[in-house]
Amino acid sequence: MTWWQTDETHAPELTSWVESANGHSDFPIQNLPFGLFSPAGQAARVGVAIGDMILDLEGCHAANLLESVSLPPFHGDGVNALLAMPQDAKRALRRRLSRLLADEAQRDAVSPHLHAAADCTLHVPARIGDYTDFYVGIHHANNVGRQFRPDNPLLPNYKYVPIGYHGRASSIRASHVPVRRPVGQRKPPEADSPIVGPTTRLDYELELGVWIGAGNELGTSVPIADAAQHVAGFCLLNDWSARDFQAWEYQPLGPFLAKNFQSTISPWVVTCEAMAPFRLAQPARPEGDPAPLPYLLDEADEQHGALALTLEVFLLTARMRDAGEAPAQLSRGPATSMYWTVNQIVAHHASNGCNLNPGDLLGTGTISAPTRDGFGSMMELTIGGKEPITLPNGETRAFLEDGDEVILRAAASAPGAVSIGLGECRARILPAT
Amino acid sequence: MTWWQTDETHAPELTSWVESANGHSDFPIQNLPFGLFSPAGQAARVGVAIGDMILDLEGCHAANLLESVSLPPFHGDGVNALLAMPQDAKRALRRRLSRLLADEAQRDAVSPHLHAAADCTLHVPARIGDYTDFYVGIHHANNVGRQFRPDNPLLPNYKYVPIGYHGRASSIRASHVPVRRPVGQRKPPEADSPIVGPTTRLDYELELGVWIGAGNELGTSVPIADAAQHVAGFCLLNDWSARDFQAWEYQPLGPFLAKNFQSTISPWVVTCEAMAPFRLAQPARPEGDPAPLPYLLDEADEQHGALALTLEVFLLTARMRDAGEAPAQLSRGPATSMYWTVNQIVAHHASNGCNLNPGDLLGTGTISAPTRDGFGSMMELTIGGKEPITLPNGETRAFLEDGDEVILRAAASAPGAVSIGLGECRARILPAT
Repeated sequence: MTWWQTDETHAPELTSWVESANGHSDFPIQNLPFGLFSPAGQAARVGVAIGDMILDLEGCHAANLLESVSLPPFHGDGVNALLAMPQDAKRALRRRLSRLLADEAQRDAVSPHLHAAADCTLHVPARIGDYTDFYVGIHHANNVGRQFRPDNPLLPNYKYVPIGYHGRASSIRASHVPVRRPVGQRKPPEADSPIVGPTTRLDYELELGVWIGAGNELGTSVPIADAAQHVAGFCLLNDWSARDFQAWEYQPLGPFLAKNFQSTISPWVVTCEAMAPFRLAQPARPEGDPAPLPYLLDEADEQHGALALTLEVFLLTARMRDAGEAPAQLSRGPATSMYWTVNQIVAHHASNGCNLNPGDLLGTGTISAPTRDGFGSMMELTIGGKEPITLPNGETRAFLEDGDEVILRAAASAPGAVSIGLGECRARILPAT
Repeated sequence: MTWWQTDETHAPELTSWVESANGHSDFPIQNLPFGLFSPAGQAARVGVAIGDMILDLEGCHAANLLESVSLPPFHGDGVNALLAMPQDAKRALRRRLSRLLADEAQRDAVSPHLHAAADCTLHVPARIGDYTDFYVGIHHANNVGRQFRPDNPLLPNYKYVPIGYHGRASSIRASHVPVRRPVGQRKPPEADSPIVGPTTRLDYELELGVWIGAGNELGTSVPIADAAQHVAGFCLLNDWSARDFQAWEYQPLGPFLAKNFQSTISPWVVTCEAMAPFRLAQPARPEGDPAPLPYLLDEADEQHGALALTLEVFLLTARMRDAGEAPAQLSRGPATSMYWTVNQIVAHHASNGCNLNPGDLLGTGTISAPTRDGFGSMMELTIGGKEPITLPNGETRAFLEDGDEVILRAAASAPGAVSIGLGECRARILPAT
């Protein structure tokens, strides 16, 4: 029995007096993710999702509804201080919120602090100091590597080094903020020199985002056995990519303008406490692969390092939207196709003394299942655009077109636990200017 | 005649009643750079360097010494708000500071706000939202490219794309903060698999840092003709590098742990206003090189885009320090060996709609002169460690050793102008833990 199995906040029979939280919601009372929201015309504040509603956490605190739970001061940064709280404090806050939202007797006191999510704007939840993107989806690495380097898809370092690189924090936006098709340099294979224009190979990438909680001091590392204490929660991340820019610019220092025009995240931090029931053993490495080096090896992480999440991608084209049709599913697959665990990427990141801070965001890299129905980008689904896909309404796509809306979803499920979701990560493409 | 030639703050005969500012100082009254400093035991505040002293700008403001000059509120971020001020406001502040420090009649009122720099701690001056490192030193790109890719030193994109990549903002430290030798993976050429340990090929990189002033909105670009309005000032930057980690990890997404353990900057923002006299025409591209693409081409930038700076690197080993010897000069060269100008890297960075913010830092990449006496890293000076250099005291170095202290300096000079400096960028290597 781990703590969550005896913890009242995870009891499967627990329901909320917020009725939309009971039944099929990403945000049942067993979830309780943190976010930063603005009720119509009001300033941004920290809140908690419950069904179709958002609980104003700052309002509850001011109204003394949190009782003895001590909250850090909010400095307008969003949820950074919440992410950084010690685990005990996080669990105490979770228990208190669970009681407030389960206990009918609290309804009158709590209701004034509830807002209909549909009437609110959701923001990037934290001030992101640094954003790092990894490359742990081994099927993606193989699929894409084959297109960029046919003779050499998976480089020799891949099975030793959790490959990662720094991304752009300033252009991360929350779900629903549209994405402007970027302009840039690309070099068509037949041309002598590059041309400048809107990308013709705009793609999405299905990733998980990992929110850092407690940081580490510069010059100190994070042992793999302690890494979980530095992870605060999860979101979905769409790492929009201009494949034509990427192919031309990425050597020798990595992708830059092909990626940094925008990244979209789902706006809720689904906490490690909420995700506790949804842990799996990390799949065994294929025969012949090297064992992780000692600084990346931990027995508990091998037992619980993977996530029982099902990831889905949907596409809603302008034509579908006009016709009132439902989005078309592009892929569906498990999150277990990660060659490295979340704890391993955290331990690796800090292994040289690099300091992580509360509110830093790590992307896993694109998570593709082994088979085409679970590939996490257009580039993989269409073999670099060579085999366009046909949508249910007869439209075809090699890459994304203006007006297309990409929707990422993730559901966590496990025996004996109420399923939770990460909330949607969605955004629409605007034409280039 | 450009504005600075008729501007009283650049008058060559102008001197300060702060006597250490007159004569050979990086910080004569013609410089007036911004920084963030703490007098012994006191909180950090924004200041201005003048000779061996620091003027407390926040103190002067509170004492109404700035008269009608309106300063933005300081939010504890450092100089971010100063960097973001409109050009007119920056020039008005510069004129007022110049008068305060030149006019003997102001001495009594201003003196209480002066602190001896030697008694103060200098911090990273701004809250750095994002840090991007470029690769504009073409001789460096050739020298290093030759070692990583003997057959293919300069890739085909180099003369079209100002190559850049995102770096780590959290581990940037001001001059004098020691650097811990990092631990990481390296794969010796003869080994089948990597080993983990302290880097054996620790290097420095001589770079200029560029501070962003006014930002741009996500989804909008910065035309090359407007780029100068987004640049607030300059510093020196040492992009410490573990060459053994870099060679093993950098494919396919670029350097990561080889670089992000620490970067050191000189702590003063030397403003564009102060650097105005020290602009040169960008050297003509070699015969046969392509012209910059239209979005990177600007006549004014061709005429004034280069910087009249002389860059120097010194090494002080533990043995030299113990013997009371002076640092040994490792290299000296001009900053004109940049294939792309500062305005070009700014315009390129924003060309896809990526948003820059006040306080963002751009590194130029290592600036090496064409000849060995001006190479900006050990890797180039020693041909990848194969030809160790001999120091004046007989010590040799292939790469940096524990106790070594690297010192970067830069002096700007031009006919008819008083020379200014960027201040030292120096830090010492601590042994690995």
